[in-house]
Amino acid sequence: MKVAILGVGTVGSEVANILIKNKDIILARAGVSIEPVIGLVRDTSKKRGVQIPLSSDARSIIERDDIDVFVELMGGVEKPYEVVSEILKRKKAVVTANKALLAYHRYKLQALAGDTPFGFEASVAGGIPIIKTLREGLSANRIEKIIGIVNGTSNFILTNMMQKNEKFEDALKRAQELGYAEADPSFDIGGFDAAHKLLILASIAYGVHGDPEDILIEGIEEITQEDIYFAREFDFIIKLLAVAKRACDNKVELRVHPALISKDQMLSKVDGVMNGVSIYGDCVGESMYYGPGAGGSATASAVISDLIDIARDNKNPMLGYKILPSENFMQILPSEQIRTKYYFRLRVRDEKGVLAKLTNIMSLNDLSIDSFLQKPKLKTDEEVTLFFTTHTCCEKDIKRAISVISGENFITQKPFMIRIES
Amino acid sequence: MKVAILGVGTVGSEVANILIKNKDIILARAGVSIEPVIGLVRDTSKKRGVQIPLSSDARSIIERDDIDVFVELMGGVEKPYEVVSEILKRKKAVVTANKALLAYHRYKLQALAGDTPFGFEASVAGGIPIIKTLREGLSANRIEKIIGIVNGTSNFILTNMMQKNEKFEDALKRAQELGYAEADPSFDIGGFDAAHKLLILASIAYGVHGDPEDILIEGIEEITQEDIYFAREFDFIIKLLAVAKRACDNKVELRVHPALISKDQMLSKVDGVMNGVSIYGDCVGESMYYGPGAGGSATASAVISDLIDIARDNKNPMLGYKILPSENFMQILPSEQIRTKYYFRLRVRDEKGVLAKLTNIMSLNDLSIDSFLQKPKLKTDEEVTLFFTTHTCCEKDIKRAISVISGENFITQKPFMIRIES
Repeated sequence: MKVAILGVGTVGSEVANILIKNKDIILARAGVSIEPVIGLVRDTSKKRGVQIPLSSDARSIIERDDIDVFVELMGGVEKPYEVVSEILKRKKAVVTANKALLAYHRYKLQALAGDTPFGFEASVAGGIPIIKTLREGLSANRIEKIIGIVNGTSNFILTNMMQKNEKFEDALKRAQELGYAEADPSFDIGGFDAAHKLLILASIAYGVHGDPEDILIEGIEEITQEDIYFAREFDFIIKLLAVAKRACDNKVELRVHPALISKDQMLSKVDGVMNGVSIYGDCVGESMYYGPGAGGSATASAVISDLIDIARDNKNPMLGYKILPSENFMQILPSEQIRTKYYFRLRVRDEKGVLAKLTNIMSLNDLSIDSFLQKPKLKTDEEVTLFFTTHTCCEKDIKRAISVISGENFITQKPFMIRIES
Repeated sequence: MKVAILGVGTVGSEVANILIKNKDIILARAGVSIEPVIGLVRDTSKKRGVQIPLSSDARSIIERDDIDVFVELMGGVEKPYEVVSEILKRKKAVVTANKALLAYHRYKLQALAGDTPFGFEASVAGGIPIIKTLREGLSANRIEKIIGIVNGTSNFILTNMMQKNEKFEDALKRAQELGYAEADPSFDIGGFDAAHKLLILASIAYGVHGDPEDILIEGIEEITQEDIYFAREFDFIIKLLAVAKRACDNKVELRVHPALISKDQMLSKVDGVMNGVSIYGDCVGESMYYGPGAGGSATASAVISDLIDIARDNKNPMLGYKILPSENFMQILPSEQIRTKYYFRLRVRDEKGVLAKLTNIMSLNDLSIDSFLQKPKLKTDEEVTLFFTTHTCCEKDIKRAISVISGENFITQKPFMIRIES
């Protein structure tokens, strides 16, 4: 089986090198040899540490008849969409690690592919075979819920904020120094990368059709040491979660946001740049998958498992439940209908009657308080920080209450809210 | 696709019921409907809460031409071996959850099966798709090491000993009351169940050919609260581990025994009856798989995923590296050549010179001490407990040192050793 690698960066060069280094076991497992024959790069003069020929001429590679599978690792959305579409139209197999491409175009590409193999194991959670698990390992199950820590950058920052008491800015700076965060980190810490991955998982579990713009996405930028303090007091850990949850009426809740989760949950132990995904199935209950979510060789491991599957002619099911009329293309639940528990932090003037006013506003907006904490203040402080958590309630009630509270003159800082995932 | 269920107990009845309850999603994922048509039981008069016809006549079921797949859930070894062999000779597909059958006869059955599908996802770690992960998800990797907590009974007992300070006997009794342990628990707590599962995983990863009798198996029966005390002092957790590790010269280390593992390891958080398996691959690094290792519906989830794979004609590779001459059928490393770190607990008379004698014996046997702890004793005690850990050394040196130490007259109890897995 001859393979072209479109994009020979960190992942692409590892794909080429592992195909050569582990040639013997790959032959044993695939039944045929899998040979990288050409790499597409922008600049052929740059050294890349690979033994395959390189070319900058995309057209000449795509049109080669002797290539069986194209591995797309170019990055971006529209350019790879064009390239992958053309390859699939030529009935050649494609393997990609490009989550953004899939977040926007997965159904179109899947339709184009038809019976032509189209693999994207590497697009979610790097080296963890989570797509195979969801599609095949748990295929007997109605999926109730998926909760994932799927962005290593955010998880590294939050882990350092919790374990080393670092401020957000310092933890981010360290992540950048270590190469875990980009110079412009907003795609990762803003939750967008996690949202792309969530849409891919939700497509498989629920046949959800939607773009990242259609779902609730919040990042970790506003989390402070005060939130960490509260989490510690109440045995919570703060994680950036990607959540897909079956709701009523053929609807699915999809959301990405920081969340307080109990210290007892297995997911709370997923630290640093590692990824973890918990899946709740109606037969199996909870199972959890943990491993490196990024990195050249871990991602290449997933790419190559797709190549081996193609060589072995493993039949992957399509995205979503194509044959299942009752659930085909479940709808995304409007975000104001989300129901969960909430935490908020309020900075208020230390005046009489403030607490009475606050609890009154909450009660008027159907919020019921589960716990309350007032941090001891120094004598000289004129302000105090209040922390509340609520029982399960509706997102629209929380949003309304926060908007009312924000307008009160005893409030000295914008109120901050984190959802609680229990 | 018509399915016969041979053995309609806890798992078999769940397989029948889930195939009916989740009919729609199973049809969507398999592409065809999967229908349980008959169940084999010993006593047809017993109520089993299933809607399929039951029969006690094995022969009449096996000979039915309309059945496509036989699910073997009979238990035992030789009887199911006979039945499964006959079915495979008739070129009919088999799915089994029977780990003992596979521990002893997997290569013979695989050879008999040839191209006929033969699935056994449910035989290891219940609902966790660990066999698919090892065979397909991580197929690009040379597997360096597998470390599993694969016996829920032992893990429940050890978790309670550590978290609730229960004695072994009390934790075992509670496991029996809750239905997590058999009346005769020796198969689980003695490590034999874990050894069966280890051999199945090692077959896939290394093509190891061996029976349970060929590998090192130790149980958890002799662990006391003193070992728990030491573990806590040094930030260890005690778990019953099943370990497969690539050694030199085409050899694999296979062993089942209680072990001290660092609190930082993800595997140390696998508590209660849950299972967890860490796999180290040369490309992906460490990944970990966590979920329910037993229970009717979790195990049925794995059985049905095999049925769906068969319906979809997913090609599973054979056991081991059939096509890979260099590693085909790796050998089991003789247990005296195992190299790891060790902990031991000694009960000695509180006399002068004991420590000097002990350290002298260790040094003469090439053991180098990594840590030492002497528990503070009451004035009235005439004995003390000493704890040692060693640097990495060889199993035969430890065994020889322990045998020498046992013969000393200051020793008042049989010395006890636990391996350390770092």
